[in-house]
Amino acid sequence: MDPDGVAKAFVEHYYRTFDTSRAALVGLYQEGSMLSFEGEKFMGATAIAAKLTSLPFEKCAHSVVTVDCQPAGPTGGMLVFVSGSLTVGEGEHAIKFSQMFHLMPAGPGNFYVQNDMFRLNYG
Amino acid sequence: MDPDGVAKAFVEHYYRTFDTSRAALVGLYQEGSMLSFEGEKFMGATAIAAKLTSLPFEKCAHSVVTVDCQPAGPTGGMLVFVSGSLTVGEGEHAIKFSQMFHLMPAGPGNFYVQNDMFRLNYG
Repeated sequence: MDPDGVAKAFVEHYYRTFDTSRAALVGLYQEGSMLSFEGEKFMGATAIAAKLTSLPFEKCAHSVVTVDCQPAGPTGGMLVFVSGSLTVGEGEHAIKFSQMFHLMPAGPGNFYVQNDMFRLNYG
Repeated sequence: MDPDGVAKAFVEHYYRTFDTSRAALVGLYQEGSMLSFEGEKFMGATAIAAKLTSLPFEKCAHSVVTVDCQPAGPTGGMLVFVSGSLTVGEGEHAIKFSQMFHLMPAGPGNFYVQNDMFRLNYG
């Protein structure tokens, strides 16, 4: 399994889900998963999905610019580091963001998000 | 030990060292450490320090804007996610950057960098 390929496939899947059916992101997290979203902390799939679905916009579009990935160590996890830009609602101005995921194996060829940290990079 | 306090102290130490005596960063990495720097990959303290000290500027100044941190899981590691801006040489224009570190315990109260991923966020 090519780690860079897995990371790119995960990132595509994650943002496509975020931009089209945000509530379905719940399936990517587990009970011990953690999210830091603009400095606010959430734990567990339910709390994380509640935060993401309650964000005050209906439409959004992520555009990924870079994806880096490294093995996280002996646990089989993988670190994925993303930069890109984000358009919200009918907004014309894209806002830069960066995000990191710590993916953990969840069965053959499958991963869940153990750690997720998201920040906007205001210009 | 307060993880947020440890993360902030590490980040201050890392960028102060980077900006004043870059070669000393070698002490923060080990043989299995990995660096992705603007998409280029390096492994091991020696290769990583060689890359960082060969960057084509002598003066630089990091200004940290946000530091997020989460425990990485059962290995005792810690994930640290930084955003900020960077001025190089006599440059007047700061460039935004984001960077993530996976810190692993290296004795009481001490950590080394297992994973390091760095990206500039061009504006």
